[in-house]
Amino acid sequence: MNEVFAPRDPLFAERVRASFARQTLMATLGASLARVEPGEVDILLPHAPGILQQHGFVHGGAVTSIADSAAGYATLTLAPVGTGILTVEFKINLLAPAKAARLVACGRVVRPGRTLTVAQTEVFGLDPDGSRVQVALLTATMMALEGKAGVVD
Amino acid sequence: MNEVFAPRDPLFAERVRASFARQTLMATLGASLARVEPGEVDILLPHAPGILQQHGFVHGGAVTSIADSAAGYATLTLAPVGTGILTVEFKINLLAPAKAARLVACGRVVRPGRTLTVAQTEVFGLDPDGSRVQVALLTATMMALEGKAGVVD
Amino acid sequence: MNEVFAPRDPLFAERVRASFARQTLMATLGASLARVEPGEVDILLPHAPGILQQHGFVHGGAVTSIADSAAGYATLTLAPVGTGILTVEFKINLLAPAKAARLVACGRVVRPGRTLTVAQTEVFGLDPDGSRVQVALLTATMMALEGKAGVVD
Amino acid sequence: MNEVFAPRDPLFAERVRASFARQTLMATLGASLARVEPGEVDILLPHAPGILQQHGFVHGGAVTSIADSAAGYATLTLAPVGTGILTVEFKINLLAPAKAARLVACGRVVRPGRTLTVAQTEVFGLDPDGSRVQVALLTATMMALEGKAGVVD
Repeated sequence: MNEVFAPRDPLFAERVRASFARQTLMATLGASLARVEPGEVDILLPHAPGILQQHGFVHGGAVTSIADSAAGYATLTLAPVGTGILTVEFKINLLAPAKAARLVACGRVVRPGRTLTVAQTEVFGLDPDGSRVQVALLTATMMALEGKAGVVD
Repeated sequence: MNEVFAPRDPLFAERVRASFARQTLMATLGASLARVEPGEVDILLPHAPGILQQHGFVHGGAVTSIADSAAGYATLTLAPVGTGILTVEFKINLLAPAKAARLVACGRVVRPGRTLTVAQTEVFGLDPDGSRVQVALLTATMMALEGKAGVVD
Repeated sequence: MNEVFAPRDPLFAERVRASFARQTLMATLGASLARVEPGEVDILLPHAPGILQQHGFVHGGAVTSIADSAAGYATLTLAPVGTGILTVEFKINLLAPAKAARLVACGRVVRPGRTLTVAQTEVFGLDPDGSRVQVALLTATMMALEGKAGVVD
Repeated sequence: MNEVFAPRDPLFAERVRASFARQTLMATLGASLARVEPGEVDILLPHAPGILQQHGFVHGGAVTSIADSAAGYATLTLAPVGTGILTVEFKINLLAPAKAARLVACGRVVRPGRTLTVAQTEVFGLDPDGSRVQVALLTATMMALEGKAGVVD
């Protein structure tokens, strides 16, 4: 179902990894970059005591943070060198409580564009017994900025 | 423009504060509860080195986290005792980079309902010189759960 | 990727067709029901002079109307007898101008629930030469009402 | 609360009226342009037999159509001559059944931008007895295109 995308920067994965490393929120949450392919990025987040909401599930804001970053970095894999990616807007449906041992946010580009790209992220809960439950679905509009000082990935 | 809402629990503010204190993500981000009124809740978040995205602005996920919590707690102020509030979904537009010294997320109920409530949060950047720039606009659908063990605020 | 869903009403397709026939907006736009399967409904809309926006494309509101109905009827295929389905909210990204000869809105249930269901619709433009371009992507939250007079599908 | 906006085209109202007249969907639905001010546009839609959903309310797609157009034309009031406005995406919450005698969609610009503008529309039901109920809340991202043949308002 997914199109195959050709990255315009052969070093796209290095660029994504370097930019991700500068997102200090990801380290604060305990998130890590798991997979970087053209148009697709996965981010992992283990359940941890400091990222919860009031009922003991992972906070929707933490789920959203990795979902947003996965969508943004999926977009960055296809962007030319010298571009910065900013999130214009997104919508997220929280489908089930995030109570699994680990979450994985799988971002992918739905519609690439020179200025605007639409990307979608599915977040799943993964448990040691192999079960996998969809926790969230995010749809985002990403904007590519070129030649803007300080806003380059 | 805002309707005046009558809370059904006279101790609504205490309940909101107690529930907020259990959201460990808020402490991890450095967010605090600033104002709790019937149908309205404000949350503060100072700019801090551990909550940034790759260009040095506060990460959209952190902005979203306080916006979501402000909308959820605005909803909780109007809910009867024994209810738990869960976020069904939201959409957020990131209107400007979050580079101010502090952010304030002002959540308010737009349409209260027995099961579903629509709430909106405006997030502003506040600088020491008194300037105030809108950074984000979130619209959320919140769901009230009653009598569900472990999901009570 | 799609789950297989079991409808709770064996006559689900007749019920969807009867309800669709009562949506007078569909006839006014020229839309018709093309496919009704458990959890999936397709609606067709030919390009027509009376449903356009100012540049001669099919109006985003017409695209949205069939996308919303497709998501709602995909939800209805799985609902028990005596239920009415109402749209709580949706978000739509308009990915390309709707200039094709015909549009098809393919709605499917993402997450069924007793009260709330999340559904998604992809709208494609179809041309006589066989080309197919995605025009829109909608994510909706649908609510099932039971025993509410006048609101039964 | 609303900012005051200065239109860049003194003939903005004529331009909006001429563009609206080309939206054939508006005539098909029975919608008319009621008010055009800098950054704000109202569209009226009377309840009519040909625009309903299955329970006899105005179809969410018709509500959305006028809400989308009101947001787009609010954006156009502030755009320079030679620009075309396209809807990138929107989210709408349907807050109450649209059963009033008339609907009015009040669109206003929240955040103007050279390329992207965020606009919001509130839709109200109006009854002969003077009652006014909010029916929907839409948030949209609009894109300005310049110098694109055939896409000028």
